[in-house]
Amino acid sequence: MDNHIGIIGSGSWATALAKILTDNNRHIHWWIRNEDTIRHMQQRHHNKHHLNSVYFDTRLLQLNSSAQEVVAASDTIILAVPSAFLRSVLESLPADALKGKKVVSAIKGLVSGTNQLINDYLAETFGLPPEQYFTITGPCHAEEVANEKLSYLTFSGVEPDATENIAAMFNNSYLQTIVNRDVTGVQFASVLKNIYAMGAGIAHGLEYGDNFQSVFITNCFREMQEFLEKYEQAQTGSGQEPAVHNYNASAYLGDLLVTCYSLHSRNRTFGNMIGKGYSVKATQLEMNMVAEGYYASRSVFEINKEIGAYMPVAQKVYAILWEQLHPEEAYMELEKGFI
Amino acid sequence: MDNHIGIIGSGSWATALAKILTDNNRHIHWWIRNEDTIRHMQQRHHNKHHLNSVYFDTRLLQLNSSAQEVVAASDTIILAVPSAFLRSVLESLPADALKGKKVVSAIKGLVSGTNQLINDYLAETFGLPPEQYFTITGPCHAEEVANEKLSYLTFSGVEPDATENIAAMFNNSYLQTIVNRDVTGVQFASVLKNIYAMGAGIAHGLEYGDNFQSVFITNCFREMQEFLEKYEQAQTGSGQEPAVHNYNASAYLGDLLVTCYSLHSRNRTFGNMIGKGYSVKATQLEMNMVAEGYYASRSVFEINKEIGAYMPVAQKVYAILWEQLHPEEAYMELEKGFI
Repeated sequence: MDNHIGIIGSGSWATALAKILTDNNRHIHWWIRNEDTIRHMQQRHHNKHHLNSVYFDTRLLQLNSSAQEVVAASDTIILAVPSAFLRSVLESLPADALKGKKVVSAIKGLVSGTNQLINDYLAETFGLPPEQYFTITGPCHAEEVANEKLSYLTFSGVEPDATENIAAMFNNSYLQTIVNRDVTGVQFASVLKNIYAMGAGIAHGLEYGDNFQSVFITNCFREMQEFLEKYEQAQTGSGQEPAVHNYNASAYLGDLLVTCYSLHSRNRTFGNMIGKGYSVKATQLEMNMVAEGYYASRSVFEINKEIGAYMPVAQKVYAILWEQLHPEEAYMELEKGFI
Repeated sequence: MDNHIGIIGSGSWATALAKILTDNNRHIHWWIRNEDTIRHMQQRHHNKHHLNSVYFDTRLLQLNSSAQEVVAASDTIILAVPSAFLRSVLESLPADALKGKKVVSAIKGLVSGTNQLINDYLAETFGLPPEQYFTITGPCHAEEVANEKLSYLTFSGVEPDATENIAAMFNNSYLQTIVNRDVTGVQFASVLKNIYAMGAGIAHGLEYGDNFQSVFITNCFREMQEFLEKYEQAQTGSGQEPAVHNYNASAYLGDLLVTCYSLHSRNRTFGNMIGKGYSVKATQLEMNMVAEGYYASRSVFEINKEIGAYMPVAQKVYAILWEQLHPEEAYMELEKGFI
């Protein structure tokens, strides 16, 4: 059993994961960029910027503003920064920094610039082998973890025993864990769902109702499956067996639903403002953040140039966010093709 | 093209369908049981009990409190009464009343007592052949039709051309129509989703959060598919090809979503009260109605005794509603099996 767990990141999702682990009496090394946030947490026992109702037993926390030191001190490293910042956080690390370590990605996005899955980036940059890589996905808004509302997380990895061991660190009275080997599939599901939640938000902003929203999300679910099929055809060539994904599981449909429907969803909120006519810039300023789905829409658009999946919703969301297509006009076209 | 359309029923869904047809300038024969409701509609041009913001051009309406006369005057008869009342409404009709007529069921339930699909009941009682039977399903709360919010309806029938013709009567600027041949599947989907919406309401009443709800509904979607597969295995024997259902379409997933998530959903509201600890009796009195899912849970429980599908959610909902199982206890067991 590994005892040295590191968390990279201090946003709401990182804070929720730190809560789960420390509720389970695990010591964690925790990288927080901002010294002031560290000081505040040491004095006041909570993260003043995110989930500030969550109080920590600081005896379990080793807070550190050096990512390199946190990585060096840990056997298992949980990555929980926005995908747009991953590269800049890790670029200070030496090339062998992850040697022999397990890396668990809780990131719901692709690497900016290269549109890589996190494992492909880590393999390329740090030589991380597939059996040392794991993901945490699932329908899980951090706010509900803070409130200890029963939630489900899916842990994926190619080595079942190692994946079970990591999942076991998180399992508790409010957190159920599910294990599978579907590393590629669940990561793309977690990227795509943010685009679709933007789309659901746009629909809401345009004053479509519940009837439409349910049809919209159904068609997004189908589109997600089409993307994965085409992606894998492109990866494996025609000779290989296609991968098996259990789409009717919480890592796929569940995560899509909670992201599209929950009022906790920042991607939905972002889309809602776009639908109401705010510009991307104004929405960013108002929300003081960029939702993952904004970047994801461009990454998926670029990947799809190669693989050619039929995904009208993702394409319209991209065009609205990046090419100033008028939302109302875009949705009037989308409406016609739904089943 | 048929010009004589009859509607049987005057609840909110019947009223919404009457609005769509009359908005499309169709004359309708409309059976309304209550003479006073008829009189009010003739004088005030709306249904005072349901969707009372919808005003009708009464020149298009032939209102009649005799179901027999409405059926006799119509070529195409739309059934839109609660499933629990269907038998009592139709029992006055002569055995040949439906001869040569098209019957379109907008009922989301099974026939009480026998747990039959509507087409099986009509075949048995009136000798209605399969090619004269159609269904209207889809994610479509009547309240949003009243507000002309864009909605989608699925029309199913074994004869594609005839089904297209019926769908065309409904198609308009706020109503998109989808056509398929999946008569059995969509009917069961529309029955099962009411049970699951009850379940989602119970979960809400028990104060589960959005994360759990998304996992719950995902598992219901899987259960729905399992039920249909087992049902068809039992019907066709092992020799036949299984039927093909497009589960990722609005008649399945979409209808499940809107019924589980929308605040318009009476089944969800009913379940919510049960989850909060009200008895079935108190909930019925408070809501002044019985939601379809209440009867559906018993019918599906009985059907499933024969076919043996693994459907823990439907079984727990049944046990809570009909056998006084405590909701909290039931859900603590359910939680463990979700994926």
